[in-house]
Amino acid sequence: MALTLHSAWRATAPYRVRIGLAIKGVTYDYAALDLIAGDQRLAAYRGVNPQGLVPTLDLGDGHVLTQSLAILEWLEETRPTPPILPRSAVDRATVRAMAGIIACDIHPLNNTRVGRKLNRLGLPQEAITDWIHGWIRDGFDALEPMVSRHGGQLAFGDEPTLADCCLVPQVYSARRFELDLTPWPALTAAADRAGLFPAFISAHPNQQPDAKPSAQGQT
Amino acid sequence: MALTLHSAWRATAPYRVRIGLAIKGVTYDYAALDLIAGDQRLAAYRGVNPQGLVPTLDLGDGHVLTQSLAILEWLEETRPTPPILPRSAVDRATVRAMAGIIACDIHPLNNTRVGRKLNRLGLPQEAITDWIHGWIRDGFDALEPMVSRHGGQLAFGDEPTLADCCLVPQVYSARRFELDLTPWPALTAAADRAGLFPAFISAHPNQQPDAKPSAQGQT
Repeated sequence: MALTLHSAWRATAPYRVRIGLAIKGVTYDYAALDLIAGDQRLAAYRGVNPQGLVPTLDLGDGHVLTQSLAILEWLEETRPTPPILPRSAVDRATVRAMAGIIACDIHPLNNTRVGRKLNRLGLPQEAITDWIHGWIRDGFDALEPMVSRHGGQLAFGDEPTLADCCLVPQVYSARRFELDLTPWPALTAAADRAGLFPAFISAHPNQQPDAKPSAQGQT
Repeated sequence: MALTLHSAWRATAPYRVRIGLAIKGVTYDYAALDLIAGDQRLAAYRGVNPQGLVPTLDLGDGHVLTQSLAILEWLEETRPTPPILPRSAVDRATVRAMAGIIACDIHPLNNTRVGRKLNRLGLPQEAITDWIHGWIRDGFDALEPMVSRHGGQLAFGDEPTLADCCLVPQVYSARRFELDLTPWPALTAAADRAGLFPAFISAHPNQQPDAKPSAQGQT
């Protein structure tokens, strides 16, 4: 059965899932949404994912998965090799906490729909950029000592984990919003080393069918 | 080894963990933070959880866990009975997606620190309440058809799952912010039925040592 990933090249949540699929060696069809044009709000997509968010992973057998972390956990359970979670329960909790800091405490505050809402509330672009930078800063301040303590070549040890699946897209996003990353050398170095792994290269936004590397605007 | 949960009676993320601990029959010491007074920003607590958020679960053996979903997954892995995730991978993905809608798409936008930030940006209280209601509405719109489809007595089937651990606190929070819940009858009924289970009764904010049921203000 062919899997179909509903994605948008620059959005960080589907980027996480693309990394996980690539680590596990899973092939899939790529269905692109243009988030600037509002494809995610069209009835056609709402039929697939009523929440109108990306990613969605259609398993092709009638089952449709949403929420990036839930999809990555499903991947780990159905394709255990190579693992993206360590073996001990405490280490798994650490990796999941690192992922949670990004997926719960940074990204939800900075995605397209929130930027649009702040704009409607009359906030000037400068205040919106401050908002975005502030939440990344808080989250990275929490992550940096965790990566320093538990990281090796990557965020946790030397092999890619769920933490890297979340961290690499978040660092990509931080750079896109022109945040100076020098206060967080450990996490930045880990993300940059992860970015050299083949799975992370193939999952990069610029490698996607819908990439428009010269485009502007928040996705 | 005695576990210690750093909690605040009305905050929804530690409420989720209290439910999970109660379902699993795990006893623990309760360490209360007054979020209104700013206990979470004091050096003493930052030493336990550098992010200054609740919950933190101190395992008493040198390991300290953060992030409610990571803690709940750790609980499920270390105390598998009774389970809070169903057996099949696809069903587990559905339950985790339900939890993710609350933990990633609703709660991070509505917690104390965000309310404080919006206030500093000059938004009037009415606009902040609209903001809170809006994100709950979007999330509940996504959850309602999932509960209708997969729910039985509770959010997924008839036994408590990770989805109920997140849903019950979120419905409690929605009521606290005086959101009319009539548009979401399935999820409201599931949450109200879950609330009658002993584990959910003991985890309720009003049952905590630091409860101040007559207090006002956002936590």
